[in-house]
Amino acid sequence: MTASKIIGIDLGGTSIKFGILTLTGEVQDKWSIPTNILEDGKHIVPDIIQSINHRLNLYNLDKSEFLGIGMGTPGSVNISESTVKAAFNLNWADTQEVGKPISEGVGLPFILDNDANVAALGERWVGAGENNPDVVFITLGTGVGGGIIASGELVHGIAGAGGEIGHICVDPDGFECTCGNRGCLETVTSATGIVRLARKFAEEYEGDSTIKAAIDNGDEVTSKDIFFAAQEGDHFSLSVVDKFAYYLGFACANLGSTLNPASIVIGGGVSAAGEFLREKVETYFNKYAFSTVRNSSKIKLAVLGNDAGIIGAASLALKFKGE
Amino acid sequence: MTASKIIGIDLGGTSIKFGILTLTGEVQDKWSIPTNILEDGKHIVPDIIQSINHRLNLYNLDKSEFLGIGMGTPGSVNISESTVKAAFNLNWADTQEVGKPISEGVGLPFILDNDANVAALGERWVGAGENNPDVVFITLGTGVGGGIIASGELVHGIAGAGGEIGHICVDPDGFECTCGNRGCLETVTSATGIVRLARKFAEEYEGDSTIKAAIDNGDEVTSKDIFFAAQEGDHFSLSVVDKFAYYLGFACANLGSTLNPASIVIGGGVSAAGEFLREKVETYFNKYAFSTVRNSSKIKLAVLGNDAGIIGAASLALKFKGE
Repeated sequence: MTASKIIGIDLGGTSIKFGILTLTGEVQDKWSIPTNILEDGKHIVPDIIQSINHRLNLYNLDKSEFLGIGMGTPGSVNISESTVKAAFNLNWADTQEVGKPISEGVGLPFILDNDANVAALGERWVGAGENNPDVVFITLGTGVGGGIIASGELVHGIAGAGGEIGHICVDPDGFECTCGNRGCLETVTSATGIVRLARKFAEEYEGDSTIKAAIDNGDEVTSKDIFFAAQEGDHFSLSVVDKFAYYLGFACANLGSTLNPASIVIGGGVSAAGEFLREKVETYFNKYAFSTVRNSSKIKLAVLGNDAGIIGAASLALKFKGE
Repeated sequence: MTASKIIGIDLGGTSIKFGILTLTGEVQDKWSIPTNILEDGKHIVPDIIQSINHRLNLYNLDKSEFLGIGMGTPGSVNISESTVKAAFNLNWADTQEVGKPISEGVGLPFILDNDANVAALGERWVGAGENNPDVVFITLGTGVGGGIIASGELVHGIAGAGGEIGHICVDPDGFECTCGNRGCLETVTSATGIVRLARKFAEEYEGDSTIKAAIDNGDEVTSKDIFFAAQEGDHFSLSVVDKFAYYLGFACANLGSTLNPASIVIGGGVSAAGEFLREKVETYFNKYAFSTVRNSSKIKLAVLGNDAGIIGAASLALKFKGE
């Protein structure tokens, strides 16, 4: 039988998502299990094997129908060895064998990459990237991550730090970052970053604002609250969102002048503000990007949501075609 | 006979350089002719054909010894059509047929790319890039150009503006650029850019300095003068060079966090200041680059000088291997 399916796994600290896809990226089946990080995360790999084998048995699917398995994981990935380390939210501090046991346990070829790269591949393949060979993906969540596809290939770089978009410096005198530098994009455009901006702005703002009042009161304020208030016309929140959009647009402009991608796709929880956010980012992108880039590279919103991970992960397994 | 040679052409506004190379990048022969840009540059293509045919006859070289011809050119390149336009220093404003007539006139396959990309390929192949799959090249001359090789492939982007490193914004409130934006890298790190920085600094500097005195006198001051004075300990010039190094190091850091290349290679006339310049740029690179990038990507000086063009151009023709 000719293999006509691929399996994608999106491994996270809370859940492990699985998908069975066609070779053209259609999700035929998906399911998830909780991530058991107890005992140094030693249950994770066996749980993955058991869950896939159970599912294939359940639906009477034969191994020969599958090209292989692709997976996205947190942490630092050794692609050629199919190992992961420094994935602290999985309790995998030291090097963890992943590829060999899963490949043997399921009986299919296996390939992995890091979670941001895999999400980028997903959005590029069947999402906002429209399968263009040059796409940049930025995910705005607890942190800011990214993945770059240039000439159809993921950019890993010499030590796997290609696409570390969250650590592009956008303000040399900016906030301290967890990485030890100052003014990284992550310090101002992550979920906590925009709140950090709001706290700074609150020190100087003198008008009325529910968000400023909440901050001054010591109430918890989230990125969602700030975007919601801005959309409702709160001037203080609008000024915070404008600064957020400046930083992101500035970074997008320089990514554009470097890579001239077909699109820069913005995803992650913070991007839920949607078109309201996108057009503000685009305004600053247009201001700082080189003219040819401004006229050819597009700022887009991600469209796949949480499915980007399983879809992009599965796409890794397309490399087993013809093997 | 198995083809064992390639031809590289570096087309410039003043001269056309030619090289005959082995498939491993050794230059076996090189020569040049003046560029005749008269009559809308209509002599350029025939001159190239005539010069190559003359040389091959002179040395009794058979066409079958060659894989093909690669060329670097100014202007906007259409790679698939092998045409060039907007190469104003060649008087090629409108679309110019290049590949078809040269391929037919010499009787060999032909491929072209823009001059900065081709120089990047040269430095990457047998120069400072040490044939790594991920290398960034920045050339500091009258303008600032660049070329990016990621996963072994030149980054062109969707409209050919990939690698427009000179138009990365390094100072949102900076000098106006010829491109219409503000604070592009080119405005402060080209040969004229560093003089522009010196003029600005001269307005506020109050100590003794031969360079400040020359600027205040209205004498002509070049980038070479400024670097020379800085190396001799002139405090004013040192402060100008330090700002220059900050801008270049900042741009390199963000290129590093984006691409994590094995090396960022700095070439072009302004880089003649050598190690004195490189180590200052590296200091700022180390300050702003993500830690993994700082520990893996290297800041290097170009080593091929003017030969980068013919070598990189010739390397384009390697794609005809096996065709």
